Amino acid sequence: MPVAVLSSLIRPLVEGRLPTEIEPRFFASVDELHALAAEADIGWFDLDRKEPMIEAVRRAERMQWLNSIYAGLDFLPLDLLAQRRVTITNGAGINALTIAEYVVMLMLVHAKGYREVVRAQDRREWLMDSPGKQELAGSRALLLGVGAIGSLVKTRLEAFEVEVVPVRRSGGGGALGPEEWRGRLGQFDWVILAVPATAETDGMIGAAELAAMKDSAVLVNIARGAVVDQPALVSALQQRTIGGALLDVTTPEPLPAEDPLWSLDNAHVTMHLSGRAQTKMFVRSAERFLENCRRFVAGEPLAPVFDPARGY
Amino acid sequence: MPVAVLSSLIRPLVEGRLPTEIEPRFFASVDELHALAAEADIGWFDLDRKEPMIEAVRRAERMQWLNSIYAGLDFLPLDLLAQRRVTITNGAGINALTIAEYVVMLMLVHAKGYREVVRAQDRREWLMDSPGKQELAGSRALLLGVGAIGSLVKTRLEAFEVEVVPVRRSGGGGALGPEEWRGRLGQFDWVILAVPATAETDGMIGAAELAAMKDSAVLVNIARGAVVDQPALVSALQQRTIGGALLDVTTPEPLPAEDPLWSLDNAHVTMHLSGRAQTKMFVRSAERFLENCRRFVAGEPLAPVFDPARGY
Repeated sequence: MPVAVLSSLIRPLVEGRLPTEIEPRFFASVDELHALAAEADIGWFDLDRKEPMIEAVRRAERMQWLNSIYAGLDFLPLDLLAQRRVTITNGAGINALTIAEYVVMLMLVHAKGYREVVRAQDRREWLMDSPGKQELAGSRALLLGVGAIGSLVKTRLEAFEVEVVPVRRSGGGGALGPEEWRGRLGQFDWVILAVPATAETDGMIGAAELAAMKDSAVLVNIARGAVVDQPALVSALQQRTIGGALLDVTTPEPLPAEDPLWSLDNAHVTMHLSGRAQTKMFVRSAERFLENCRRFVAGEPLAPVFDPARGY
Repeated sequence: MPVAVLSSLIRPLVEGRLPTEIEPRFFASVDELHALAAEADIGWFDLDRKEPMIEAVRRAERMQWLNSIYAGLDFLPLDLLAQRRVTITNGAGINALTIAEYVVMLMLVHAKGYREVVRAQDRREWLMDSPGKQELAGSRALLLGVGAIGSLVKTRLEAFEVEVVPVRRSGGGGALGPEEWRGRLGQFDWVILAVPATAETDGMIGAAELAAMKDSAVLVNIARGAVVDQPALVSALQQRTIGGALLDVTTPEPLPAEDPLWSLDNAHVTMHLSGRAQTKMFVRSAERFLENCRRFVAGEPLAPVFDPARGY
């Protein structure tokens, strides 16, 4: 009978609902996880620290299926998982709705200068004019990454009459191809990064890309800090060669207190909170896991599958 | 030849573009306006203070057409204008797009607790969890007032998978009638006030309506401060019988520094800025005025016409 090694945090959401063909074992600490990992046919090893998760994966030599609530699993020993032919299901899309809402919020907050309104209320000061005077309507956004998050961002922005131009591998049909977008950077008011974290996207936005943007354009990063050359970004923000940066992700995380990003008035640092602004993540993830357990027992394909070779 | 008395602020936007049948006279001060008002066949008397505008209207005994950039003209001597049969065109819809964007921003900011994120960045503190965890998706909004602003709010919220239930005079077709909505207040997560300022809407939301709302529900007021019984609202916010209030408008404006609304953590005070967060208001208003001048000369109906009897 396949053994599933699961966090006890998940217990109330799955207990009594797993297929009878699967035997659950719950861990309540890192030590318990490390002791149980070798028995796992199925593993859901999520912890709030990466190192002990990596160690659990190393120990899980029998594991056929690894599940995670996280979408980005680039921190795991992917070579090892590929070599062991472990099927990986991730949290792609679990947070997508929440993150898409956050992205539009940040763009609106920037457009209207709403942070200054918050500070004015804190001072009990009635402002006579809006600190920001941009409208989303009529603006143009370049969308890099049209996965679960990017797709939801696109439909929401289009309702605001934003023209959203996605970048797709194939190009065409209103989209730009991977070799086309750099030459068009100067045409956009927003450059939205919703790409997966892969070798290909690492440092995708550097000094050259920032220099090609309009001086009013805003970079929105909800992907990974590493997608952007952060020293180049700080320099562009300090010299105001771009309009601003809305950064849910940074390098490193947490950002040290002395980092210059904190105090730049044209940078929003949102502490990787965009996906956490919800209460349904565990419920959604547990429902998806239960459905995959049913498929696992029935020998059907699991979804969504994370490909360690592609990195998403 | 009809004389149009216009602010010199408008001059660069209309000069050389008015029909030759209209003679423009520009005022650069209140005194100049008051001196010219009696000659006006057409008046565009907007000032940033109400009293001298009212006085100009009183003096404009020949005036056939009064134009304004403002949507809400309840402060004008409407009885007098009705008695003189003056056609009034207002700014209904000029700010609608901007205000609709602001409304969605405020709802998102409330849902995600973004003000706390702003304050944390100011302290250089990396928050480990989102201060707000609501999603717009799946929530329900009652929309009171489905004019230019309300309609744009509706389409934007619907893109976020919010169920928007409008209140219409007729009711039916997914809308609630004027006698129905009070009984349904407990079913909504958001109550959005986008009604015109009339005798009918004055004090529309009082202690009874606030008590009928869910304790997590949020009141959004982009109409007029007078639409809400503000002492009752402050009390509901202090006792947390509702979830919050997003107030672009208050009684009075500006809100005095000692007003309790400023310091309530569940009240957003946005200082009547929602319509000002744009740069296109004067341009849009001038374009509309020029089109109406063409119609005035041609004897065609002007639009949009403000009805002093209805108050919108």
